[in-house]
Amino acid sequence: MFSGIYRTIAYVNGLFCLYLALAMFAPMTVDFIDDNDDWQGFLASLFIVGAISSALILANRGQFTPFSLRLGFLLVASLWISTSLVASLPFLLGSREMSFTDAIFEAVSGMTTTGATVLSGLDDMPRGLLLWRATTQWLGGIGIVAMGVLILPALRIGGMQFFRMESERNDKPVARIHIFAAWLIGIYSALTLVCMVLYAAGGMGWFDALAHAMTTISTAGFSTHDTSFGQYGDLVLATAIVFMLIGAMPFTAFFLGLIAGGYKRGFDSQISILIVIILVLMVPAFVTAHGSGSFTPPDALLHSLFNVVSIVTTTGYSTTDYTKWGHLSAGVFLVAMFVGGCAGSTAGGFKTYRLIILFQTLRVSVRELIYPSGVFPVYYNGRRISPEALQSVTTFFFAYVAILFGFTVAMSATGLDLVTAFTGTLAALSNVGPALGDIIGPAGHFGPLSDAAKWMLILLMFLGRLEIMTILVLLSPLFWRGG
Amino acid sequence: MFSGIYRTIAYVNGLFCLYLALAMFAPMTVDFIDDNDDWQGFLASLFIVGAISSALILANRGQFTPFSLRLGFLLVASLWISTSLVASLPFLLGSREMSFTDAIFEAVSGMTTTGATVLSGLDDMPRGLLLWRATTQWLGGIGIVAMGVLILPALRIGGMQFFRMESERNDKPVARIHIFAAWLIGIYSALTLVCMVLYAAGGMGWFDALAHAMTTISTAGFSTHDTSFGQYGDLVLATAIVFMLIGAMPFTAFFLGLIAGGYKRGFDSQISILIVIILVLMVPAFVTAHGSGSFTPPDALLHSLFNVVSIVTTTGYSTTDYTKWGHLSAGVFLVAMFVGGCAGSTAGGFKTYRLIILFQTLRVSVRELIYPSGVFPVYYNGRRISPEALQSVTTFFFAYVAILFGFTVAMSATGLDLVTAFTGTLAALSNVGPALGDIIGPAGHFGPLSDAAKWMLILLMFLGRLEIMTILVLLSPLFWRGG
Repeated sequence: MFSGIYRTIAYVNGLFCLYLALAMFAPMTVDFIDDNDDWQGFLASLFIVGAISSALILANRGQFTPFSLRLGFLLVASLWISTSLVASLPFLLGSREMSFTDAIFEAVSGMTTTGATVLSGLDDMPRGLLLWRATTQWLGGIGIVAMGVLILPALRIGGMQFFRMESERNDKPVARIHIFAAWLIGIYSALTLVCMVLYAAGGMGWFDALAHAMTTISTAGFSTHDTSFGQYGDLVLATAIVFMLIGAMPFTAFFLGLIAGGYKRGFDSQISILIVIILVLMVPAFVTAHGSGSFTPPDALLHSLFNVVSIVTTTGYSTTDYTKWGHLSAGVFLVAMFVGGCAGSTAGGFKTYRLIILFQTLRVSVRELIYPSGVFPVYYNGRRISPEALQSVTTFFFAYVAILFGFTVAMSATGLDLVTAFTGTLAALSNVGPALGDIIGPAGHFGPLSDAAKWMLILLMFLGRLEIMTILVLLSPLFWRGG
Repeated sequence: MFSGIYRTIAYVNGLFCLYLALAMFAPMTVDFIDDNDDWQGFLASLFIVGAISSALILANRGQFTPFSLRLGFLLVASLWISTSLVASLPFLLGSREMSFTDAIFEAVSGMTTTGATVLSGLDDMPRGLLLWRATTQWLGGIGIVAMGVLILPALRIGGMQFFRMESERNDKPVARIHIFAAWLIGIYSALTLVCMVLYAAGGMGWFDALAHAMTTISTAGFSTHDTSFGQYGDLVLATAIVFMLIGAMPFTAFFLGLIAGGYKRGFDSQISILIVIILVLMVPAFVTAHGSGSFTPPDALLHSLFNVVSIVTTTGYSTTDYTKWGHLSAGVFLVAMFVGGCAGSTAGGFKTYRLIILFQTLRVSVRELIYPSGVFPVYYNGRRISPEALQSVTTFFFAYVAILFGFTVAMSATGLDLVTAFTGTLAALSNVGPALGDIIGPAGHFGPLSDAAKWMLILLMFLGRLEIMTILVLLSPLFWRGG
C-alpha cells in the first residue's frame, strides 16, 4: 500500500494499534461481567481497530527499511498519535457519550501518562472504562521507556545522546529490541504486580489496587476516585510513594547493565539529585502542610512527601487539595511541576539530568568569567559533555520555557486566569496532570475548560511526551525537503 | 586609606557619590522655595555624603590601577550599591518618615530605573522628593548606558561581548571614556529637554513635564501621580511612546558611529525585532482593550500601544489598569515583562538580542537534528557567534529563569499569592516596575508588602540591573581566592 519508510511506518503503526485493540478484551470482559452495556463500545472499537490494523499490517508487511533518522522521527510521532486515536474509541463509543474533544483529551492524557482528566464522577463509572484508562497509561508507560531507551538517544534530542548504549553500533538493533522488550515487559509487569499486592494489603479493593498499580508504575496518575488517594491509609500512601519513585527512575539502570554491559556507570547522579530535589521541596511543603493546622506532624510529613513525590515524578495523584495549605505550597508545587523524573523512566517533565547539566554549565560560566583564558568542560557522570550535546540541553530548555510562556498567552486568550493558563500549560507540557488554581487544581478536573483550551493542552501533552524537538523537526520544511 | 584596586574602587565610589550628592541641590532648592521642610533632609544628606565622599576621594587619589576584570566586577557592583545608599538618605531624613527598608527600596528602584514604588499619595508629595525620585532614575539611566557600553562587554557577561567596540584595543580607555561620557550626557540631556517640551506642549505642567521626561528617557517609570499617565491627553501619550522607545534603543547606535567608526553595522536586528515584538504583543492587547468596552477603537489602539511599549521597554508607566481588560491581557503583559529592551540602552529585562540569538539557536538545533553531520553556525547581525558567546547567552537564560522560579517560591513564603510572587519577581528582575495582581499591579504599589518581600525585590532589582552574572561572580569563592 505504501512504499519505502512509509511502508514500515504503516506496518509498525498497524501492529501497535492491534496490540492496543487486543488490550480492550480485559475491560470489555469486566463490563460484560458487571452487566454494563459499555462492553459493546469496546467490542465495536475492537472490530474497527482490528480491521484497519490488520489491513495495514497485511498490506505493508515485508522487508523493514533500515533505521534512519527520518524513520525514527516519523515513527515516534505517528505511533503516539495513532495509539491515542485508538485509545479514544471506547470513550467515544461508550455509555458516557463523551464529545470528540473530551475523548481525544482523555486518550492522549492516558497514552502520554499525563493523568489530566476531563471526567468527574469516577466512583460511579463503569469499571471497564476505569480499567481502560489505567490500561492506556500502563501501556503508554512501557512505550515511553522503550522510546527513551531505544529511539530518542539515536535522534539526539535534548541531550538524550548521553544515554546511547555504548554497544549500540555493534549489535543488531532488531535483536536488541526483542531482548530489551522482553526484559522491560517482564520487570514492568512484576513491579506492577508487587505494587498491586501491597495496595490490596493496605486495604484497597483488588480492582482499585490493579488500576492504581498500573497508573503508579507508569507515573501517570489516573485514579478510580474523584478524590484520588484521599481516602487511603498510610500503607497505601507509602506504597505509592515508593512505586512512583521507582517509575521515575531510569528503568535501564535496573537491568540493562545485566544485558548490554557498558551501561553501568550512568544514572547515579540523576537518581541522587532527583531524591535531593524531592527532599528540598518537601521541607517547605511540610512547613505549609503543618502550618495549615489540618495535620498532625507525622501526617503532615506523609502528605507533603506523597504530594511532592507525586508531582515531581509527574504522576499527579493527590491526597488532598495541597493548594489550600497556604501560598507557599503554590510556589513549591509550581517548581515541582517543572523538574520531572529521570531519562529512561516513565516520568515526564524537564528531566533531572538536564537540570544537573544546566547548573553545571552555570557554574562553569561563572568560572570562565573569572578566568577568561581557562577552559572548564562540563561533566555529567564523569564523562565530559560535548559542546553539541550541551547545546542540545540549553536549547531544549529555551524551547521548554518559550512554549510555556507562549501557550500561557494562548490559553489566557480562551478566557482563563493567569494561574490556570500558566500552570495548566506547564502541567500538560510536563505530563504531570493536575495544575494549580480552582478549575484544574488537584481538587478539580479539566472538564470545564473550553474545547480550544483542551486542544491546546492535547498538543502540549504530545509536545512534552515527544520531547518537543520531535515535533519541531516534523514542522520544519527542511525535514520534508530532504526526500 | 586602601591599596591596590580597592584604592581605585574607593576613589571612584567617592566620586560618583559626590556627584549624586551634588544633584541634591536642585530638589533642595525646590523644597526651600515651596517652603517645605524637606529641604533640611536634603541639606543633611548633602553634608553627610559630601563629607564621606570627599574623605574617600582625598584619601585614595593618585594613580589608577589599570583596568582588570576584578576591578570591573567590583566597581560595577559597588557603584550601584553605594549610590543607592546615598539616594536613600533624602527618603530617610525627609518628612515622610519612611522606614529604612522603604527608603532603600525606593532608592534602589530609582537607581536601577525599575520604577516600582512603595509610596502612594504622590500627588500631595513635596515636589523636592518627587524631583529627587526622578533624578535618581535619570542618573541611573546614564549609568546603565555607560556600564552597558564600557564595562559589561569587557566582562563578557551574557553575550555582551558582541557589543565590544572594535577600536577598543587601540584606544586609550580613559580618553575614550571622557569623550564617550561627554557625548552621552549631551545627547541624553538634549533628548530629555525635547521630551519635556513636548510633554508641556501636550498640557503637562512644567514640573511634571521635567520629572516625567527624566523618567521616560531612562525607561524608568516613576511618576508624579498615583494614576501615572492616566490623566493625560493623546499628545502626551504619543510623546511618551516615542521617548520610551528611544530609551530602549542602543544609545551607541545614535552617535558612536560618529566617533569610533567601525560600530555602524551592529544593532539593526535588535532594533527591528524589538519593534516587531511590540507590534505582535499589541494585537492581543488591542483586542482585549477593545473587548473590555471601555475604549473607542482609536483609544484602544493608543492605550494598548502605550502600555505594551511601557512594559516591554521596562519603563512601567500605565494609563489604566490593563489587567482589568480581560484574562488575555495578563498573559500578554506577562510575556511583555520578560522581553526587555536593547543592549546598550537604559532598558532592563532579558534583552532583545538574547532572544534573537536563542531563537536562532533553536532553529539551528532543529537543522542539526535533521542533518546530524552538517555544521550550522549561529549568526547575529551577520557575524558568526562563537560557541563561548553562545554559551554565555544560553546560560544567562537559564540563570534568569532559575532565579525567577526560585524567588517565586521565596516570595510565596512571605504569604503572597502565586501571581503576585511570580510577576513581582519578574517585574523586579526585569527592572520593569509594576507587576500583575491586585497588590502590585499597575493600579497598586509595593508599600503593602512585608519587609522580607521588599528585601528580596531589592536583591532582584540589583540582580537584573547587574545582569545576574556580576553578582554570581562576586558570590563565587573562586573570585576572592584569585588574589
